[in-house]
Amino acid sequence: MISKEIEGRIARLQGKLQQQSLDGALVIHPVDVYYFSGTRQNAVLWVPVSGDAVLMVRKSLIRARQDCPLEDIRPFPRSKEFVGVLGRCARVGLMEDVLPVQQLKFYARLLPSSEFIDISGINRELRSVKTPWELQRLRKGGEEICKVFAQVPSFLCAGMREIDLAAEFALRLRQAGSEGPVRMRAFNQELFGGLVVSGDKGCEPGFFDGAVTGAGLSSASPQGSSSQNIQAGRPIMIDYTATFDGYIVDMTRMFVVGNYPEEAEKAFSAALDIQSYVQENLRAGQICCELFEGACQLAANHGLLENFMGVAGEQAKFVGHGVGLELDEFPVLAKGFENSLVSGQVIAVEPKFVLPGIGVVGIENTFVVSDNGGERITCLADDLVRV
Amino acid sequence: MISKEIEGRIARLQGKLQQQSLDGALVIHPVDVYYFSGTRQNAVLWVPVSGDAVLMVRKSLIRARQDCPLEDIRPFPRSKEFVGVLGRCARVGLMEDVLPVQQLKFYARLLPSSEFIDISGINRELRSVKTPWELQRLRKGGEEICKVFAQVPSFLCAGMREIDLAAEFALRLRQAGSEGPVRMRAFNQELFGGLVVSGDKGCEPGFFDGAVTGAGLSSASPQGSSSQNIQAGRPIMIDYTATFDGYIVDMTRMFVVGNYPEEAEKAFSAALDIQSYVQENLRAGQICCELFEGACQLAANHGLLENFMGVAGEQAKFVGHGVGLELDEFPVLAKGFENSLVSGQVIAVEPKFVLPGIGVVGIENTFVVSDNGGERITCLADDLVRV
Repeated sequence: MISKEIEGRIARLQGKLQQQSLDGALVIHPVDVYYFSGTRQNAVLWVPVSGDAVLMVRKSLIRARQDCPLEDIRPFPRSKEFVGVLGRCARVGLMEDVLPVQQLKFYARLLPSSEFIDISGINRELRSVKTPWELQRLRKGGEEICKVFAQVPSFLCAGMREIDLAAEFALRLRQAGSEGPVRMRAFNQELFGGLVVSGDKGCEPGFFDGAVTGAGLSSASPQGSSSQNIQAGRPIMIDYTATFDGYIVDMTRMFVVGNYPEEAEKAFSAALDIQSYVQENLRAGQICCELFEGACQLAANHGLLENFMGVAGEQAKFVGHGVGLELDEFPVLAKGFENSLVSGQVIAVEPKFVLPGIGVVGIENTFVVSDNGGERITCLADDLVRV
Repeated sequence: MISKEIEGRIARLQGKLQQQSLDGALVIHPVDVYYFSGTRQNAVLWVPVSGDAVLMVRKSLIRARQDCPLEDIRPFPRSKEFVGVLGRCARVGLMEDVLPVQQLKFYARLLPSSEFIDISGINRELRSVKTPWELQRLRKGGEEICKVFAQVPSFLCAGMREIDLAAEFALRLRQAGSEGPVRMRAFNQELFGGLVVSGDKGCEPGFFDGAVTGAGLSSASPQGSSSQNIQAGRPIMIDYTATFDGYIVDMTRMFVVGNYPEEAEKAFSAALDIQSYVQENLRAGQICCELFEGACQLAANHGLLENFMGVAGEQAKFVGHGVGLELDEFPVLAKGFENSLVSGQVIAVEPKFVLPGIGVVGIENTFVVSDNGGERITCLADDLVRV
């Protein structure tokens, strides 16, 4: 990665560390290490409040040196030498949202006179605002996933199973150069590329923090496609991610073999209405939770509030989520999320409805927050596709 | 899941809790929750040292009730009511290997008079020994992945890129019903289904705790297939996993377009020798680290110790690893792992060699530890396939 990009990220972190009177941050989670160093090797990054960062590498030192533009890259030190790398540090920031307790105990033994402060929120705020370098990668992902969505009519046919459709989509996405796995930050969340569901299987409740979970293939992996055959006249939702250079774009389109039920067409118009409202308001200074409230109000106006964003009683309380190196980044257009939007944040907006007995219906596009509202980076038409 | 299976697992955990004078275990990580309750929903399981377990569900309560045979399944309690569910608990076990610090702090606030004890090791030991119910699922995975490996000659051809081959393999595996994502327990490890590498790209060093990492597509995802074209005369390694009902089987086979270099054939014979030695010794009572030492001795006898299990200087220190609900289960046939084998443990044995300038060569099969040595569950011939 270019040196300037990493310098900027580290400088912004150091600014925050100074505000919080911290002596530095110990960056341990691999996605955070990649963000601040340019390498996703098994390594730990020390970012002092001022001065040069140090990358300490367990494996592979060779590869870390190829990837990372920092000056000071060294093998992971012996335990008794670790404290010497950091110097006298009273207050050390950690990302405690993802750091396992055993890891904390390990570093606490190495740094017996340091106090550890949770800086998860700072990290997520910093990472939420994308640089031009990052936006370039997200736009590439947007272009590539749109091409795969555009091919769906060439391989979707009645009688195939949900998993067959998911497999064919994943094949083309991989051939286009999408990486994996899809990284999520939340402790108990996971996603196998995306969700390809049809008819009533889309309406199954589930653990996933989203409008749709899908039935999956077993109670061990109760998410995404099932082995049910796709039936004519039942809406098919393909909600999928593409990952290029680590950056995730999220997108949903609807398909059907034959014709959509009228209820599905109505719900789809409501979803487009909500998307337009949110897109217009993806401007710096807008308050995240207010956009969710506005979306709920529109859903109510369409008479679909009880179907909005999930199975009745287990509905998700958001209409959009940040994307980047992880699928569940800040900000979230969610109940209780009172932060203001910042230009350069990237948000997947996904108004969706669960229609019991019919299926799930909605739209999803990824947008960049700008002064003129959301700039869309998934530029395929929002059609209800018929095959 | 059948009630008897869950009862047995909980009873075995309770036995261990009693030995350690613990009042119970709070099971929070979703894979552990699935193991002890039969449901992988967003839920937390309380297992008291004696008496009935309680499943507390955030989402989806509906789905958890379908999956889980326990009597006491309830919505996740309010904070002030949580302590009442557990009763007076001085010593509570947690899996601190995977529990984020923020989660620990959350439960510590709910249970202010409890002391938390790390029971990660106990959990991993319990889970390492598979029941007949689990073995049935692993055998199914073994059968299915062998069928996909057997099809490789029908779609492998010169000129395709590593990612194309990976995509075609993944397509067929998904159509066969394999689930995802591949779960790993280690903090900073991940795998996107498997590794499909050819020629010198297989020799790239990397973060992965294994013999082979692969170049990947970017420094953000530096693992697995690259976009390099597969060249005739260069060994192709397909190291892939299949997941059925959550249980992971791990397997590797070698392919080539044209003919193998002589060095590759020699290294492959050495890998088979090591595999035979390990398989013979996959019996209860054998010491894990001794099998690794024996494997190293055989590699040395073949003059290939410096090529064994990784890039020189960054070699992995194991020759086999437990598999189950996670890819990196106990036991590990590794340096320093002094535990004895137990019948019913399931181990992927993967002697591999990195041959600079040529590629990576080796074999991998999944075995059940039994009284007669390893019982193989990936029953496809160990051929060096030529296309």
